[in-house]
Amino acid sequence: MEAGNLQGGMLSKTWVVSAPGKVILHGEHAVVHGKAALAVALNLRTFLRMNARDDGKVLLQLPNIGTELSWDVVQLRPLLAAFPDWTGSEPPAPEQLEKLKEFVGTAGGPGGIHDVATVAFLYLYLSIAAQSGVLPSVDIRVWSELPTGAGLGSSAAYSVCLAGALLSACGAVGYPLGEGQSLARWSAEELDLINRWAFQGERVIHGNPSGVDNAMGTWGGALRYQSGKITPLKRVPTLRILLTNTKIPRSTKALVAGVKDKLLKFPGIMEPVLASIDAISQECEGILEAMADGSSQEYCSVLEELVDINQHHLNVIGVGHPSLDCVCQVTATHGLHSKLTGAGGGGCAITLLRPDTPPSVVDAAVRDLGRCGFTCWETDIGALGVSAHSLPSLKADVVKILNGV
Amino acid sequence: MEAGNLQGGMLSKTWVVSAPGKVILHGEHAVVHGKAALAVALNLRTFLRMNARDDGKVLLQLPNIGTELSWDVVQLRPLLAAFPDWTGSEPPAPEQLEKLKEFVGTAGGPGGIHDVATVAFLYLYLSIAAQSGVLPSVDIRVWSELPTGAGLGSSAAYSVCLAGALLSACGAVGYPLGEGQSLARWSAEELDLINRWAFQGERVIHGNPSGVDNAMGTWGGALRYQSGKITPLKRVPTLRILLTNTKIPRSTKALVAGVKDKLLKFPGIMEPVLASIDAISQECEGILEAMADGSSQEYCSVLEELVDINQHHLNVIGVGHPSLDCVCQVTATHGLHSKLTGAGGGGCAITLLRPDTPPSVVDAAVRDLGRCGFTCWETDIGALGVSAHSLPSLKADVVKILNGV
Repeated sequence: MEAGNLQGGMLSKTWVVSAPGKVILHGEHAVVHGKAALAVALNLRTFLRMNARDDGKVLLQLPNIGTELSWDVVQLRPLLAAFPDWTGSEPPAPEQLEKLKEFVGTAGGPGGIHDVATVAFLYLYLSIAAQSGVLPSVDIRVWSELPTGAGLGSSAAYSVCLAGALLSACGAVGYPLGEGQSLARWSAEELDLINRWAFQGERVIHGNPSGVDNAMGTWGGALRYQSGKITPLKRVPTLRILLTNTKIPRSTKALVAGVKDKLLKFPGIMEPVLASIDAISQECEGILEAMADGSSQEYCSVLEELVDINQHHLNVIGVGHPSLDCVCQVTATHGLHSKLTGAGGGGCAITLLRPDTPPSVVDAAVRDLGRCGFTCWETDIGALGVSAHSLPSLKADVVKILNGV
Repeated sequence: MEAGNLQGGMLSKTWVVSAPGKVILHGEHAVVHGKAALAVALNLRTFLRMNARDDGKVLLQLPNIGTELSWDVVQLRPLLAAFPDWTGSEPPAPEQLEKLKEFVGTAGGPGGIHDVATVAFLYLYLSIAAQSGVLPSVDIRVWSELPTGAGLGSSAAYSVCLAGALLSACGAVGYPLGEGQSLARWSAEELDLINRWAFQGERVIHGNPSGVDNAMGTWGGALRYQSGKITPLKRVPTLRILLTNTKIPRSTKALVAGVKDKLLKFPGIMEPVLASIDAISQECEGILEAMADGSSQEYCSVLEELVDINQHHLNVIGVGHPSLDCVCQVTATHGLHSKLTGAGGGGCAITLLRPDTPPSVVDAAVRDLGRCGFTCWETDIGALGVSAHSLPSLKADVVKILNGV
């Protein structure tokens, strides 16, 4: 096994991979109680550029969090002993993670975002190397449009990008981008492998993730999640949204516990609300599939109505917040419809935009939300999953960051 | 049968009667779909002063609407032919109403509030006269704290006061106020008779009323109404509220139709919301009965929570209005909880006040609501039903109006 023994021996090769984030469109919290949730891929993406090196070094650069690390392949090779063949299902072993934490010097420590990202990278690098027999000497730079810790699947997008790039580099999957192409995707089988490895990365980062976020990063589009089962939607339209981060910090655990308390306190009042949320997810799924065949004002109106109803329900189950009410009110003054997404109690909200919502309306809403101290992104949901790109086809600011300029 | 042949021949007698309005605490709209509604007596009252006359005249003065009418008993007597004995259940006959409209000169006309109030008075006067054999010569002045047409049961309070006074004058019921008493109530059997006659008055005014408003005006307290059945709550506390009239006009018919449309469009989403509203009414009923044994901070908190939840539900079923959102927001800034009451789409809202809510908080809320263009009353719910009063025991401004000063 040699360092730099890369697929096809393309020492000068560059791999560019991106993966989307995710938002919950409907069903947050209800999903904890056995109802369906509808997750959609968010076109705020994580980008990875990987370059082959010929000096036996492995570099990891994460400009979002100021991480710059470098190892020699010969320094990493002894760790391989801890990474026997993976059957494709068992979670990362605690001994493996301990060993990696020890290696990066965080054993027993609290594990900040920098350490967690490093351990997840090394886990994927070494596991995939152990399987493929290749320890690639590469330069990896990952940058994300996604804020971290906001429930938008940024860690999964990171894991998906790493899995896509490392599996490609080791020849476990092909690199789909052909000469002259600006964007290409992997086959369904390859995506399945990428997803399974990305899930391992998520397990390293989160312990016991649902698998929704890595599935969204991999497959894109939308999926239904219920009782541990992930079902991708067959056809999904791309819809414009405004994503607003209220930047109000919150504890997902406390919010989930609060909903449970309300259910125990007022079962007769709260159970029907969860049933109604479940019906909203179902209705929305049907509308999304119908919209994939062509949008209409009527479909847009229904989506808006569902967003409004669910926002009321989320307030009823106790996960609203004045900042989220503010997003709803401000956007309503521009004729737009918003709901919280994810845990609530602050965090993020999504605002639906119609295909024909004029830029002036969006700009005015963004301006007013900015005045409330919120950060907004105009983006899409139902986005493409993990993709290979030609570097020049990306937006100039992304190219600049990936080039380390 | 003689004019002025009054009970006990007390020609100098004065009868003073009051009856409360009502608000729906929970269950408005849901009640249309077979769920329970919880109505509570509102301590904005209608006051009636009746004086015996010795000149064979009947005077009706309604200072709220500028009505001043006078008839001779001899002029009314011929109408009695149209009022045979009433069995106690059948509604006013169309011929009777036609005859009365013709008599007051509105036959075939649109029937403004003045005409409707006049016809209802004559209907009750003549029906009760026909039963008792007495055509009293009296002076009747009715004045109300209740705004009309706001869904607060003002017409029922009018009918209840008329029924109480006329039945007393004719000896069908006693007049309960003893020497030196300031307030007295009729017996349960007498109240039942007053209620049945008040329902007849409501039928004259509204055609096909539910009977809730006259029951509230008669019995006071609170009642549950479901599928046409009225069940008074056994024990009800008196609770402080703020009643706010947004003065936004609305069509109850259109609002009811809108809810039905939503139910047909999204049955899976909307049926559970009605089920949840039903559970709110049940929960609230239990809390009210428990509070009758003693209030507590805990009970107050639950009542507030139920109000907040139901307000969200009412928005979900489409009967909210920006003016009502405004009431909720303004009162929330003072730590108070509000919901719409009745048809919604504007109209009135109630705000719960705790026993220990300081006057400064109430004043500040009233001031801020006034700045929105709304009219507020600080009053109580769970109020006393129809009552007999000594004139001097009433508030000075009411006495002044009842004295015609």
